[in-house]
Amino acid sequence: MKLGQVTIVDIAKELNISPSTVSRALKDYPGISDETKEKVKALAAKWSYRPNAVAMSLRRSKSFTIGVIIPEVVHFFFSTVISGVEEIAFSNGYNVILCQTNESLAREKSSIETMLSNQIDGLLVSFSKETVDFEHFKKLIDINFPIVFFDRVPDLENTVNVTVNDFQGAFEAVKHLIAQGCTKIVHLAGPKNLDISKQRQKGYMEALKQANIPLNQDWIIECPKGTQEESFQITKEIFEKSPVPDGVFASNDIAAAGSMMALKSLGLKIPENVGVVGFSDWQFSAMIDPPLSTVSQHGFNIGQTATKLLLDLIDKKKEAITTREHRTIVLETELIIRQSSQRKKF
Amino acid sequence: MKLGQVTIVDIAKELNISPSTVSRALKDYPGISDETKEKVKALAAKWSYRPNAVAMSLRRSKSFTIGVIIPEVVHFFFSTVISGVEEIAFSNGYNVILCQTNESLAREKSSIETMLSNQIDGLLVSFSKETVDFEHFKKLIDINFPIVFFDRVPDLENTVNVTVNDFQGAFEAVKHLIAQGCTKIVHLAGPKNLDISKQRQKGYMEALKQANIPLNQDWIIECPKGTQEESFQITKEIFEKSPVPDGVFASNDIAAAGSMMALKSLGLKIPENVGVVGFSDWQFSAMIDPPLSTVSQHGFNIGQTATKLLLDLIDKKKEAITTREHRTIVLETELIIRQSSQRKKF
Repeated sequence: MKLGQVTIVDIAKELNISPSTVSRALKDYPGISDETKEKVKALAAKWSYRPNAVAMSLRRSKSFTIGVIIPEVVHFFFSTVISGVEEIAFSNGYNVILCQTNESLAREKSSIETMLSNQIDGLLVSFSKETVDFEHFKKLIDINFPIVFFDRVPDLENTVNVTVNDFQGAFEAVKHLIAQGCTKIVHLAGPKNLDISKQRQKGYMEALKQANIPLNQDWIIECPKGTQEESFQITKEIFEKSPVPDGVFASNDIAAAGSMMALKSLGLKIPENVGVVGFSDWQFSAMIDPPLSTVSQHGFNIGQTATKLLLDLIDKKKEAITTREHRTIVLETELIIRQSSQRKKF
Repeated sequence: MKLGQVTIVDIAKELNISPSTVSRALKDYPGISDETKEKVKALAAKWSYRPNAVAMSLRRSKSFTIGVIIPEVVHFFFSTVISGVEEIAFSNGYNVILCQTNESLAREKSSIETMLSNQIDGLLVSFSKETVDFEHFKKLIDINFPIVFFDRVPDLENTVNVTVNDFQGAFEAVKHLIAQGCTKIVHLAGPKNLDISKQRQKGYMEALKQANIPLNQDWIIECPKGTQEESFQITKEIFEKSPVPDGVFASNDIAAAGSMMALKSLGLKIPENVGVVGFSDWQFSAMIDPPLSTVSQHGFNIGQTATKLLLDLIDKKKEAITTREHRTIVLETELIIRQSSQRKKF
């Protein structure tokens, strides 16, 4: 039996295959037979092979690189967060590498492994829509690896998080629609497994409650994909039924844009017949017709705040480990009122 | 004098400072005194210290990670390229890490260093607007490090490149405006140091020439930043002069969107008074008012093609090194006609 730090090369030699085959077999990549995968995994288990990821994180020296894992770079909010991250990182002599998960749990896991074997000093994460089990993050937290979550915050102990007040943002948005004379407001909700979706829905419900508007459960519709096509279809269906709503609060601007297209296709005028408010203030939101009212999350500020926290964890690592508790910084949102919701001229 | 592979730790011991100070001094990071920087650099030179980047690339084993360096993730075109890159990379068992340069040469250089010390197997690059000297890429090409350039292609020998036919794309766009009755067409050009800008301008000029429309040099205006604000100002100035143009061909959709806002603010109707065509087919372009005609670059296809080439270079590295020449794959563009340019109904 082999003792000490077993490497992929040791396993490869023993089985008379190439190190890259071992690496791929351990990672369950396609193109490797099940038989080979089983042989490799059995020997790796027997020899207590520890994958690079954890080994690296235990013996690494500082690389002055931080990793950022986000669902999608095409999501405007995340691109503004990245700018905020880089602002703080670069001015402190750190480089930034990014991985996108495309909202896939499998890619999220392999991204973390890639990042760790790349000897990053710390990790900023907004997890995927598929992620409901946080074991892969828990492992990192348990070995005191510096990690800060932003926007999407896991249900785990001892995490450090930066998020925005989604409840308040949604509450203000719906309160504004009501002040503009909307009483029959549809909510295009986000994916149910994300806490941000729940918070935004709660904000919507609280605004209705405070205005004594009865809740219609049929008007809360989940948009799991968050695409334009999805909200186009959903909006068409709901506005062809009776009673016809007079307001839409969407949990993101893409869904709001799809909804606006559907309303136009039905001959409804925005904001005269239907007031619309989105969430996130995408780059396009001021340019569409009519310009879309929305809730800004100040992504740049989120990125800055999360990175400052992460550098604190990295620099005063030991101190931070013993004193840190479950710590969540909640930043305020801002309602941006454009033409899509202005039914009354002030 | 020290012989063999000198490390940062050796230098640190000799000067009685920390390894991280040596690392930062070598990288000219802030917070290190000029005196220390000079001492470190002098000793590094004396001992022929080779930074990790090159050392790593010479002795590394495969990491199954490729690096992508792009100017900005917020640029929609680049986000579509990344999706194409990931499609090919993931299906071949590779992970992808990204760095954005924010169009800064200094960040481009430090991104390359970060990527290389992270043991990537190969690099996909679209360089920054600031990059006019390609020495940092030449070093990599000289040691046969697998690298493929896309969209923005350097003026270097022995490179492998994927680009689109920018000349043809621009030519078709302007030919379309002329067919729609535009004869006084302004060109909002891209940054002069990028070859893609030159090609698009040539396409514009050729379309005018073939239609026997005399060239007005005052109507070719460089937009170095490519922001909405910039093209808003430029458009306002030029349309307040006489003769008033009747067409705008912008080298990107953001510039086109800013231009459209300026035209509206002047009371001009799009497309009746002025036809507008952009370039790149951003996500928002179909949603603005009126929907913007544009030239699609098929970023996803660019990403796929560039990644296939890169994996070829990585896998058959030695073979590729001896046989590869200056190789550029040029993909076709596609004119997408929307409302902003349809002055005649077919």
